[in-house]
Amino acid sequence: MDKDKLLYGVAYYDEYMPYERVDTDMEMMKAAGINVIRIAESTWATHEPEPGVFDFSSVRRVLEAAGRHSLSVIVGTPTYAIPPWLYALHPEVLAITEQGAGKYGCRQIMDITSPVYLFHAERIIRRLMACVQDYPCVIGYQLDNETKHYHTAGPNVHKRFIRHLRAKFGTVEAMNKAYGFNYWSNRVDAWENVPDPTGTINGSFAAEFECFRRLLVEEFLAWQAGIVNEYRKDGQFITHNFDFEWRGFSFGVQPDVDQKAAARAVSLAGCDIYHKSQSELSGREIAFGGDICRSLKEDNYLVIETQAQGHVDWTPYDGQLRLQAFSHIASGALGVMYWHWHSIHNATESYWKGLLSHDLLAGVTYREAMTIGADFARLSPQLMGLKKVNEAAILVSNAALTGISQFPLPAGQDMPAGQDMPGGQTNYNDVFRLMYDALYDMNVECDILFPGDVDKFKNYRLLCVPALYSATDDLLLALKDYAASGGVLVASFKTGFADEHLSIAAAEQPRLLTECFGLAYDQFTEPQDVYLEGDDFALSADERRVSVFMELLRVQGAAVISSYRHDFWGQYAAVTRHAFGRGLAVYVGCMTTKAYMIQLFAGILKEAGLWGVEQESGFPLIIKSGMNQAGRMIRFYFNYSGVARKQDYLHGAALELLSGARYQEGDVLEIAPWGVMVFEEE
Amino acid sequence: MDKDKLLYGVAYYDEYMPYERVDTDMEMMKAAGINVIRIAESTWATHEPEPGVFDFSSVRRVLEAAGRHSLSVIVGTPTYAIPPWLYALHPEVLAITEQGAGKYGCRQIMDITSPVYLFHAERIIRRLMACVQDYPCVIGYQLDNETKHYHTAGPNVHKRFIRHLRAKFGTVEAMNKAYGFNYWSNRVDAWENVPDPTGTINGSFAAEFECFRRLLVEEFLAWQAGIVNEYRKDGQFITHNFDFEWRGFSFGVQPDVDQKAAARAVSLAGCDIYHKSQSELSGREIAFGGDICRSLKEDNYLVIETQAQGHVDWTPYDGQLRLQAFSHIASGALGVMYWHWHSIHNATESYWKGLLSHDLLAGVTYREAMTIGADFARLSPQLMGLKKVNEAAILVSNAALTGISQFPLPAGQDMPAGQDMPGGQTNYNDVFRLMYDALYDMNVECDILFPGDVDKFKNYRLLCVPALYSATDDLLLALKDYAASGGVLVASFKTGFADEHLSIAAAEQPRLLTECFGLAYDQFTEPQDVYLEGDDFALSADERRVSVFMELLRVQGAAVISSYRHDFWGQYAAVTRHAFGRGLAVYVGCMTTKAYMIQLFAGILKEAGLWGVEQESGFPLIIKSGMNQAGRMIRFYFNYSGVARKQDYLHGAALELLSGARYQEGDVLEIAPWGVMVFEEE
Amino acid sequence: MDKDKLLYGVAYYDEYMPYERVDTDMEMMKAAGINVIRIAESTWATHEPEPGVFDFSSVRRVLEAAGRHSLSVIVGTPTYAIPPWLYALHPEVLAITEQGAGKYGCRQIMDITSPVYLFHAERIIRRLMACVQDYPCVIGYQLDNETKHYHTAGPNVHKRFIRHLRAKFGTVEAMNKAYGFNYWSNRVDAWENVPDPTGTINGSFAAEFECFRRLLVEEFLAWQAGIVNEYRKDGQFITHNFDFEWRGFSFGVQPDVDQKAAARAVSLAGCDIYHKSQSELSGREIAFGGDICRSLKEDNYLVIETQAQGHVDWTPYDGQLRLQAFSHIASGALGVMYWHWHSIHNATESYWKGLLSHDLLAGVTYREAMTIGADFARLSPQLMGLKKVNEAAILVSNAALTGISQFPLPAGQDMPAGQDMPGGQTNYNDVFRLMYDALYDMNVECDILFPGDVDKFKNYRLLCVPALYSATDDLLLALKDYAASGGVLVASFKTGFADEHLSIAAAEQPRLLTECFGLAYDQFTEPQDVYLEGDDFALSADERRVSVFMELLRVQGAAVISSYRHDFWGQYAAVTRHAFGRGLAVYVGCMTTKAYMIQLFAGILKEAGLWGVEQESGFPLIIKSGMNQAGRMIRFYFNYSGVARKQDYLHGAALELLSGARYQEGDVLEIAPWGVMVFEEE
Repeated sequence: MDKDKLLYGVAYYDEYMPYERVDTDMEMMKAAGINVIRIAESTWATHEPEPGVFDFSSVRRVLEAAGRHSLSVIVGTPTYAIPPWLYALHPEVLAITEQGAGKYGCRQIMDITSPVYLFHAERIIRRLMACVQDYPCVIGYQLDNETKHYHTAGPNVHKRFIRHLRAKFGTVEAMNKAYGFNYWSNRVDAWENVPDPTGTINGSFAAEFECFRRLLVEEFLAWQAGIVNEYRKDGQFITHNFDFEWRGFSFGVQPDVDQKAAARAVSLAGCDIYHKSQSELSGREIAFGGDICRSLKEDNYLVIETQAQGHVDWTPYDGQLRLQAFSHIASGALGVMYWHWHSIHNATESYWKGLLSHDLLAGVTYREAMTIGADFARLSPQLMGLKKVNEAAILVSNAALTGISQFPLPAGQDMPAGQDMPGGQTNYNDVFRLMYDALYDMNVECDILFPGDVDKFKNYRLLCVPALYSATDDLLLALKDYAASGGVLVASFKTGFADEHLSIAAAEQPRLLTECFGLAYDQFTEPQDVYLEGDDFALSADERRVSVFMELLRVQGAAVISSYRHDFWGQYAAVTRHAFGRGLAVYVGCMTTKAYMIQLFAGILKEAGLWGVEQESGFPLIIKSGMNQAGRMIRFYFNYSGVARKQDYLHGAALELLSGARYQEGDVLEIAPWGVMVFEEE
Repeated sequence: MDKDKLLYGVAYYDEYMPYERVDTDMEMMKAAGINVIRIAESTWATHEPEPGVFDFSSVRRVLEAAGRHSLSVIVGTPTYAIPPWLYALHPEVLAITEQGAGKYGCRQIMDITSPVYLFHAERIIRRLMACVQDYPCVIGYQLDNETKHYHTAGPNVHKRFIRHLRAKFGTVEAMNKAYGFNYWSNRVDAWENVPDPTGTINGSFAAEFECFRRLLVEEFLAWQAGIVNEYRKDGQFITHNFDFEWRGFSFGVQPDVDQKAAARAVSLAGCDIYHKSQSELSGREIAFGGDICRSLKEDNYLVIETQAQGHVDWTPYDGQLRLQAFSHIASGALGVMYWHWHSIHNATESYWKGLLSHDLLAGVTYREAMTIGADFARLSPQLMGLKKVNEAAILVSNAALTGISQFPLPAGQDMPAGQDMPGGQTNYNDVFRLMYDALYDMNVECDILFPGDVDKFKNYRLLCVPALYSATDDLLLALKDYAASGGVLVASFKTGFADEHLSIAAAEQPRLLTECFGLAYDQFTEPQDVYLEGDDFALSADERRVSVFMELLRVQGAAVISSYRHDFWGQYAAVTRHAFGRGLAVYVGCMTTKAYMIQLFAGILKEAGLWGVEQESGFPLIIKSGMNQAGRMIRFYFNYSGVARKQDYLHGAALELLSGARYQEGDVLEIAPWGVMVFEEE
Repeated sequence: MDKDKLLYGVAYYDEYMPYERVDTDMEMMKAAGINVIRIAESTWATHEPEPGVFDFSSVRRVLEAAGRHSLSVIVGTPTYAIPPWLYALHPEVLAITEQGAGKYGCRQIMDITSPVYLFHAERIIRRLMACVQDYPCVIGYQLDNETKHYHTAGPNVHKRFIRHLRAKFGTVEAMNKAYGFNYWSNRVDAWENVPDPTGTINGSFAAEFECFRRLLVEEFLAWQAGIVNEYRKDGQFITHNFDFEWRGFSFGVQPDVDQKAAARAVSLAGCDIYHKSQSELSGREIAFGGDICRSLKEDNYLVIETQAQGHVDWTPYDGQLRLQAFSHIASGALGVMYWHWHSIHNATESYWKGLLSHDLLAGVTYREAMTIGADFARLSPQLMGLKKVNEAAILVSNAALTGISQFPLPAGQDMPAGQDMPGGQTNYNDVFRLMYDALYDMNVECDILFPGDVDKFKNYRLLCVPALYSATDDLLLALKDYAASGGVLVASFKTGFADEHLSIAAAEQPRLLTECFGLAYDQFTEPQDVYLEGDDFALSADERRVSVFMELLRVQGAAVISSYRHDFWGQYAAVTRHAFGRGLAVYVGCMTTKAYMIQLFAGILKEAGLWGVEQESGFPLIIKSGMNQAGRMIRFYFNYSGVARKQDYLHGAALELLSGARYQEGDVLEIAPWGVMVFEEE
């Protein structure tokens, strides 16, 4: 992979084209500065039209054309959508899920543990790899596509799950005790009688099944990587396009994959990021998705898919495509690739539009891409492989996410308008996003940590912990040590509540952390007309509103930042701070508004000496920074709004790379609607 | 059939009566002017109590009583609800649908292609026909009841569908190409591996299955007609009660039947029309349902079912039953029949009340019917078989309807209040109704055209085309020719977008019509706070609101009527007009309010010289006209409101038939709440 | 059972404890005045860990500890949740329901008619009973838990249902006629062809199946009682915890059990009552649930389960636990038992919190319980076994409830805010609660009557009849006789409409009662902007609103209390009164607001001489009374609000038992927020 060149690319489906136009397309690509395409991932049935009969002519044709047009190519394995003949021969390849048997038609419906599927998948992968490995335009491989377990839960999966449980617990008695299986007569007498987890009312057991299915994903990707690596040449990377909790757009941590573990199979982390657009374009998903992906390999990453025109309601305003592209680069991306080159003319994604509309002509979105491609080509030396050194981190956890999905928070119909979270659904990621978005809006860039990253806590001055509902004792004690050793720890409600088996602790809460936070509680409720008070934050009544969930905190050494305004709950603390050891431990006992969270963080950052010039501004003016390969600091100023903004330039003397103008600290910038400026400090 | 007598009738279920009262009922009918009953369609299990054992005693008893009381009878074949013994003997007669296997209990749950079902259906039809054919009171036959395919989709249907595809395409390759089956590895290698369409994500394939199932309905009705025709005597008609998209009432084009094709099996078109009542009674469903039904055979038609008291929330206000009855006649109906004579005392339709309430006494609704019956009897010479000659037509299409159901419009939660369309559901018929209702409210009567009616386009001066999403090239070219030849063509967004296989065109839109409309577009979006501007229409802000969907039109010769008021979309046209050839082509690029559509039509009608005196008034004062058999023009003035209205009489000197008074043009009429006046011009 | 001691108890699950602490728990119980525990009902798999291997060590350990700590014990049979091994051996024990086959995991999923289940259930019951019967601390037994039919509807149940029908009707012809099976060809030719009722569209047939399944519950409880009685000793009671329609809390009459009939199996009636809390705590569910339960055996009853801390949104305010406890006693409860002692640490009810929080420490709720326990111990002589003599009764009916669920009322989206009924769902219990809650809010205490209680009507001066939709002729004639003989009869819309087979009467409505009420109707509708007028009630416009359903009443002797304000329905009566015989018959033809119902009852009570001092006050000040075993009248004054209230003491000179102060009539009481005062009259 050429480390000196920002990648600018598209997914290209020659197989979907209504007529022959590969050279036309590549000429248009070149004209737009596009330098990489992704191919082959969706079209198994085209490449193996009959069982054991292979036809890679379209692959070869595209590779040869890419060679002629000097385009790089990422080849995807076509295993996420199975051919009709495979289903016809072996209907058992379809996953049996919690909802029962499936029907052929959609992608991602097979049992990824089925030997029938694996046999055929391996055969097509090997044939494809043998076909493509020697083309010099091939720079890397993508394993499968947004792999998940597809809720596979059939009898064979159940059998494997029992083996997993036996390996974990040794005896049914140990399992019975860990899961509290005495409850409602669920106690198991023998391994063969372990019930199908899809009917269970035991959240511990259900959570273990979710964990087990995440292991299946990890195993599957590692298996594919093993095959691909047999063919992979020096200089070719191997990647996967990880994606995120989907709420019609990328929302938060992916529930069905342990991405940190799964990423061990790849040499380059990749991701798919989709987001709202038009007046709702905020850059938040670009940022958190990038931060997660960058944290997987602790290195730069590739945005393998993001929207060009996207859905009907995402058709971009002028300037937005540029704003998005530079936002990805500013988060440390090595490049941006669109899904997809052309809008397709049939089937379910016909209205998920590509860079070209259905007419395949040079429309307004394509013309904006031309400006991006030109800038990427020109500025690659300055913008390629930006390194970020962040002082803040957020700890995320699949186990905590699953825990809260098993024991859901109230539905959130009470969440105040403007809180930027979809109503009616309050899960782990809502708490993650509450913290993340507050930091984003304050121009505080973060890294993402995972439960296995305990040894990295010390690298950060601020560690935020949203709703760590399920955790081992060791992890909680590491948080305590972090604060005691001088860190600033900010944790939310629910942290520590249950152990790694999702057993609630028979102890004061927050478990193992009462001393650290200087408080305890044993009660909580759903707020009804409850507001935060007692602090000196400049907030409106609506911004003080408590929603979804509140703990009734009794301070035991902590200082109260805010308490609840309520006839009966007024006696309890809501948000507290506690000087603990050499550090500070802040506890947020309820779902606050983002505006409140921003005020809270402001105080913390100032106290911790983390308040910088970037924090003097804030959303919609977003600032990101990174060190380029020449050791120079690059600063991005983004205007995430439809109105032009005047903004003081806050950093050192610099060259603005897009315009070529020079600026000094204090100069007033004029940033266009949905505009971006990029500064290289001198 | 007696062509000199308006039919006034009821469905009569002697089998449902709680006690013997056939003579009592018929005396009450005669007293109310009821002259026809419909019998037998629902009670197979009564007439064939055991397999092969027939008992038509109740049929004979009713026919004999009808003879005594001089009532005409329409006999329905009882095939739409199967007996328990048939299910018990052959459970496989139940349709397997997209949702899986069914349960016995409801009507219309069988597989209409099942030979088991067809064998038994034929036997009961033949026995019934043999029993009834010679009764002189029998004036006609109704095939089955509101026949549809009932979503039959079992393995046998799948097998037939494959045959259908093979006949259509010849090779799997041709099908793969037409449907874009390369997408997501759906490419088919052999006919036997064509997957079950109920799981597909390919809209083209799904749409073909819908088309195929409409053919099954057509085939079934033709098969029944073949049997009935063996028995039918001279002078007896054969009909079917076609119905409409159901939203708790008749809403628009029936998705599951190609009614124009299916109507070839009958000699008289019939329909079932149900609608809201009380303060929501508008006459719109009576009008569009009648217009569709009249267009099926291009002749007068029979309203076989409509509500008497109807649902709990439909209990009519005083006068509404009369208003409804004359509205049907004014649309060209030969008569009006209520579902049903008496409210029934058991089962699911107990609260769908008939002319008599459950007490079977002469209640207020029955007493109002007496006035209608008397007027129908007296005025039959003037009102029977009214012929309409309309200058406007609307082109409707099952294929376009299916296309939009496969690629749905946004949900329409944004539709403005007062637009008279159910919220939360925006489909083809919403666009049809937007156009139809605007014309109705302006007193512009229409005919309905179907895709096969290309040669009839020339008969109309105004042709409206709602959302013709799926169309052959020939149909689109015929629209172009229509405008070029002097017609006024008004088409909405989505017209032309996809071909007859639901493949989106790889060409500028509207496909094949860019020259005709003088514009092109390749982008569209969902409107957020977008309003129409630039025209001189007298409309409020709410009435200018754009909802659901908007295309970003670039004019290429057209004149802009309205553009979008929006920071970013303001550069695009919304509604345009283009003098094309000798005609005019108007394009409506977005979902407008009905108020806007009325203003738009007003301008078009005036320019085209189609503006008449009727357009000086409008809803709730509805005017309809027709030529009677004596060649005199009959004019109906309806007051669709609960307040008495003064209204100028707009037409030539005439006799008001209900009062016997004479009126001249310019006289002021006083029309009662929910009132009607009927004028015979001199 | 010690009749001199108020029971104060908890469900105790030693099996769920995270560590050994039975003596710690019992010491804490004793400190809180808890004197009874309920054990064993949920943990079959613990007590029979393998098929035929029994281990009652935890039961014995708890019984022995209870003996040491002088706690009484109620032993439950553990049959409502089956062990995994039973499902693994015999998957057929799971009920097949309307929704199909189930999955193992939850409780209450088995077919209670399965011989496999019954065999194993009998074996565990006998072994458990043999183990516990001789412990002196055991005061009684609870059969199963909240038994219902769990919608069992498999082929074996269908076969039994056919036998039930054959026994009921003798011939299929009689059944066909009773159910109107001619409709839609449902006529049955032979018993073996009776279709599965789960697919039926015939409400009569469906209702009979519901009735049949209630018989299965009755049979099951009687069968269990037979076994338990073989072991039960003198002085030990047998009970069952009946529960109520569940809307997230106890709402009304239980649809799935004929509790009056089922209660024949027990010697002591018991119930589970859960209700909203915090600002929504009203005491209404405590009252109606207690009134129903007291009426089952016409004697005092036991509250076997009620909430301690309950759900997340139920965490009680200070004082509410006390208020609730005394409210139960005031309704005639012999004691109050919490579900459950400790919050549990695993599985689906982890957030349904007990008296102890998860930390198992003495938290705020436990500390409030200590005050209750102390008062109960001290005041048992005064408060044990209070007898109530009510002058008002409400007649409830499973058959009417089922009838209205088969022919539902409109959805009720139109119900005015503040009517205290969950929106979007209007069923029989909404009408029951409309009447019940109005009386409750007026401090009118009631008994509950069932259709078999005809001979008890005469014991009451006021008989309220909500929506008696399905009734035998005899029952309706008994209502008529009641009024004729001097009773005050208040019935709502829908009363009398259908017979016991859910056949609507072919007669004027209200069937058999037109003479009694002096009115008739044959039409009804859903109100749209309809208000009551014509009366002299002091009500706001909102309080006059008619919602859901209205009958168009024609008076025939009755006086109109209120009519409808509406252009077209204004001609009909809405609420009427009729002096009939020696009594008064009031008919409420529509769904009114509770405020209207209170005004209506006020007039009726005054006229009937039933207006007492209690009615001078009203909700949130609730007064209840009962005669204690010493023959003294006990008066409870409850403040169901969060603000302290001044209130005149309305009764005779008395000792306030909690404070020891004495009061005279006219003294001003100060009642704390959520406070209670208890007076023993001298």
